[in-house]
Amino acid sequence: MGLSSDELKSIEAMRENAVPTRRVTVPAMEDRLYRIAPVLDHGFVRVIDYMGGDESVVQSARVSFGVGTKRRRDDEGLIRYLMRNRHTSPFEMCELKLHVKLPIFVARQWIRHRTASINEYSARYSVLDDEFYIPDIDQLGPPHPTNRQGRGRGGLSEPTATRFQESIEAHSHRSYDVYSDLLGSEQATDGLAREIARIVLPVNVYTQWYWKIDLHNLLSFLRLRLDNHAQAEIREYAQVIESIVREWVPLTYKAFKESQQSTEALTKSETAAVLRLVRSALESGEIVGSRSELAGLEDRLSKYLENESR
Amino acid sequence: MGLSSDELKSIEAMRENAVPTRRVTVPAMEDRLYRIAPVLDHGFVRVIDYMGGDESVVQSARVSFGVGTKRRRDDEGLIRYLMRNRHTSPFEMCELKLHVKLPIFVARQWIRHRTASINEYSARYSVLDDEFYIPDIDQLGPPHPTNRQGRGRGGLSEPTATRFQESIEAHSHRSYDVYSDLLGSEQATDGLAREIARIVLPVNVYTQWYWKIDLHNLLSFLRLRLDNHAQAEIREYAQVIESIVREWVPLTYKAFKESQQSTEALTKSETAAVLRLVRSALESGEIVGSRSELAGLEDRLSKYLENESR
Amino acid sequence: MGLSSDELKSIEAMRENAVPTRRVTVPAMEDRLYRIAPVLDHGFVRVIDYMGGDESVVQSARVSFGVGTKRRRDDEGLIRYLMRNRHTSPFEMCELKLHVKLPIFVARQWIRHRTASINEYSARYSVLDDEFYIPDIDQLGPPHPTNRQGRGRGGLSEPTATRFQESIEAHSHRSYDVYSDLLGSEQATDGLAREIARIVLPVNVYTQWYWKIDLHNLLSFLRLRLDNHAQAEIREYAQVIESIVREWVPLTYKAFKESQQSTEALTKSETAAVLRLVRSALESGEIVGSRSELAGLEDRLSKYLENESR
Amino acid sequence: MGLSSDELKSIEAMRENAVPTRRVTVPAMEDRLYRIAPVLDHGFVRVIDYMGGDESVVQSARVSFGVGTKRRRDDEGLIRYLMRNRHTSPFEMCELKLHVKLPIFVARQWIRHRTASINEYSARYSVLDDEFYIPDIDQLGPPHPTNRQGRGRGGLSEPTATRFQESIEAHSHRSYDVYSDLLGSEQATDGLAREIARIVLPVNVYTQWYWKIDLHNLLSFLRLRLDNHAQAEIREYAQVIESIVREWVPLTYKAFKESQQSTEALTKSETAAVLRLVRSALESGEIVGSRSELAGLEDRLSKYLENESR
Repeated sequence: MGLSSDELKSIEAMRENAVPTRRVTVPAMEDRLYRIAPVLDHGFVRVIDYMGGDESVVQSARVSFGVGTKRRRDDEGLIRYLMRNRHTSPFEMCELKLHVKLPIFVARQWIRHRTASINEYSARYSVLDDEFYIPDIDQLGPPHPTNRQGRGRGGLSEPTATRFQESIEAHSHRSYDVYSDLLGSEQATDGLAREIARIVLPVNVYTQWYWKIDLHNLLSFLRLRLDNHAQAEIREYAQVIESIVREWVPLTYKAFKESQQSTEALTKSETAAVLRLVRSALESGEIVGSRSELAGLEDRLSKYLENESR
Repeated sequence: MGLSSDELKSIEAMRENAVPTRRVTVPAMEDRLYRIAPVLDHGFVRVIDYMGGDESVVQSARVSFGVGTKRRRDDEGLIRYLMRNRHTSPFEMCELKLHVKLPIFVARQWIRHRTASINEYSARYSVLDDEFYIPDIDQLGPPHPTNRQGRGRGGLSEPTATRFQESIEAHSHRSYDVYSDLLGSEQATDGLAREIARIVLPVNVYTQWYWKIDLHNLLSFLRLRLDNHAQAEIREYAQVIESIVREWVPLTYKAFKESQQSTEALTKSETAAVLRLVRSALESGEIVGSRSELAGLEDRLSKYLENESR
Repeated sequence: MGLSSDELKSIEAMRENAVPTRRVTVPAMEDRLYRIAPVLDHGFVRVIDYMGGDESVVQSARVSFGVGTKRRRDDEGLIRYLMRNRHTSPFEMCELKLHVKLPIFVARQWIRHRTASINEYSARYSVLDDEFYIPDIDQLGPPHPTNRQGRGRGGLSEPTATRFQESIEAHSHRSYDVYSDLLGSEQATDGLAREIARIVLPVNVYTQWYWKIDLHNLLSFLRLRLDNHAQAEIREYAQVIESIVREWVPLTYKAFKESQQSTEALTKSETAAVLRLVRSALESGEIVGSRSELAGLEDRLSKYLENESR
Repeated sequence: MGLSSDELKSIEAMRENAVPTRRVTVPAMEDRLYRIAPVLDHGFVRVIDYMGGDESVVQSARVSFGVGTKRRRDDEGLIRYLMRNRHTSPFEMCELKLHVKLPIFVARQWIRHRTASINEYSARYSVLDDEFYIPDIDQLGPPHPTNRQGRGRGGLSEPTATRFQESIEAHSHRSYDVYSDLLGSEQATDGLAREIARIVLPVNVYTQWYWKIDLHNLLSFLRLRLDNHAQAEIREYAQVIESIVREWVPLTYKAFKESQQSTEALTKSETAAVLRLVRSALESGEIVGSRSELAGLEDRLSKYLENESR
């Protein structure tokens, strides 16, 4: 993912330029701004801009005049409450803008998240670079029978995986040669329009875009793309973005991890079974851990079953 | 909610006109089409149009040429799978259009659901009718200390509740009198423009709109508006719409109830506590109900905790 | 629109707190941040946060590493090009967050713009203030027969307008009295829940919200709400927001005014008529103004008609 | 675009099954349902479902009880009024669902229209067919210096164009061979997971999806994709969809063509120039065509300039 020296200079120039602002500011994000976080072999994610922080969530939830923050403890409680009760709009009040370099097949999964703004580098008007995603050999294997996570090599021998990797690499370069040939010389009167020459490029070629999304929809993105069912390549991007979110809005991130990535919900019948176990433990007194937690659970589960049977 | 005889005739005229179609058709919805389902004292919900049914969900998930349905059993399984794994786009492939009459304060909660299309009766250009929502006296009480559901009369005596009800009713009529006075005579050169006269009307006055939404977003609407935290009045509308959905897409409705309205998810720490109980039950063999269910639960919960601690 | 001294203090506290940032910053917006811009009798608009500026539009359109700006002149040209050719996504890359106080009937028009995030002050959980929009007497008149703009008093005599104004004001206060009575004493065990007591309040009562929207959708909002067809009251809010946009993104604002608020497009038949006039003027040489402008127009209109007749 | 006999049978089976409905029905659409309309060399568009018609636009604009239609003439006038004044929500009340087969590079442009629902055939779980878009030789040429429409061969000789075409075709097949090799045998323990094998396929490979969109957003799609600036390949799809819309909602289509695809709006300065010409023609009486049309134009343009200068 070697940037050109011009690109590196541009990044440094952007970083040098600090001016005072009255807006909500997050030091950890200031530190990150414009810098490259590498992903895969040639890809990256870099923060271009952000709006708001944890205190903006609180402030908008309270529709208040002053800063959201009273005490950090109160803010944390409010954010957990909002997350747990699906009050999504306060989380829409923060915004993140990224510059991302990614293979086309990843871009096609990514763009399914419609509540975002995108500007993509245009292969109709510009020439794409000779950069393709070539998977590591331990990413090259058959589908895992049950668990997709860590696709891995599975039963594939190292020589076979290596042969496959070389085949992908050779084909990528051959594709670029065909592309260059179709484009013709620079002046392009003896070649094809860029918009048509590019149709021979495979979906592992890299593209770039600016992507802007609010925090609520970003968490939905993470929920789906950090999941085991997501393809390994987009999961790597999601993991980098997750680390950005953790620094940007630590209280929101914590609440997100707690309440959203908790176990799958219990079915009605499972709830009844668990409730029986909890009650029997409370009655017998044979409890490992917190009695009040079990009591709270007993209350919640029984209320739920009551409602269901009405 | 007395309709005028003209309105009733229009509805009957619409219902008499049946023609053949090759589109997916749901007999229960045909039966409902255009008819009024009353809500509150003057409100209603009526189905104006629908697109698709359970088989459309299946068909689009399979991106297939033929009908979605192979066997009803397969379809049911696929629909449950889609629901459980948050594959939301197939559910966007069905669409429902309703004509709704509702008080303005309910309309203001309803419109927060942005992924829908709305055409509202305009109080800028038309004169509103003298119809206001007057709550039943057993809807008139103080806030319930913990449970908002069934707001009820609480500690309020019947005479007090009745006095409040009469006060709301009297004020509603007085508001309409002021409104009529501001409007002036029919020709309106001695009165105010409708758009400004209406500003004295309270938010319990009835308005009407056409509302169109896809099935996925309709289920989100129901999830929030059937909930105990929703205000009792909008919950009544949600309940009527729920009964429409149950008839329209029975398999989707069933999957929705099972997986979405299950108990609240367990927190990480609760999961650990439940897992201890489940394991101890499996070991001791003291099981009420299904062992395989508990074994399945044990598997799922332990995998979850493993992932979390990675 | 008297703010409490606590509110004023909060605003000043927010304004005093300036820290360095590497983000795109617009001095004119920094100057505005958190301050109240009054609208109508009790309403206001104040900027809470913003993301980006003209240079962000340029930067994302170029999917570039460095600052968007090469030369101001180039940026201006690119922004006009994007606007004229409906390349809307670069304008989505800027974001504005406002705190707005507004009457409910204005809020109901405003919220029709769905591509925005909103947190509204809740009348279910909080008590509304005794603040109502009372129109000036020169806003009180019958509908203008053709031109809605500047509704004005029309044929209404000043005494009549004054009587109407007093009626609106008296009714507003009476409504608040009923509301207060229904709420009962502070502890609220002898009164109604807030969510039900508020149903007697008229739609000229003030509410508040945080509203966040991207620049592209903000321009759509302005296009509709600055228009003569918009009700005078929301037009006043739109005018204040327009003045914010003019300071925030001057190049985008200029392009917006030029290309979007130009005359309504000509119909095909009008185009043919205009083309005949333009050609005849070019031939006869009887031209007032710029010949090259007419020549450019001739070219554009004739190409258009050619395309249409293909 | 040869369908398999199974696919053809499925289509016929779907078409045979007609049942009565009370919903708004459009005979021309019934005739089209499920049938293939070919696009490019292997692509197609086929209508899977539709909701509403011109009368639904009218009915929802009137928020009425009965059928929208009073007299066809009234409906036509209302639809033109709605279109001209950007009242977009009534057009959202109609919905179209298509099954589309298209090359990936076209799909990537198409999906930029976010207000739509999509289910795409998954290359993660299924094997793609050996079908690639190979442009006709008269689509193979350098970029036209000014007019992108009808890309054409430009200065490219037929032998060169043919050589390029053969190169694209050969490369497509070679790509499929590499893909097949990576997949390994059917059982796939000696090959790669489908999700990774497919990364070598070029963007001219065909994919398929179900696409559902409302009429308002469909018209926006057409406006952009019928335009000269759109790439020729997606324009072919847009033209087929345009012919569907013309049959489905003839009044809306007519209003769309009239008001939306009219000439680009005039700038302020052009408006002043045209106004001078129009006035001079009205004064001199030297008019070719309709005087009342010119008079109407004079009125509109002068009002516009008046507003602008306020």
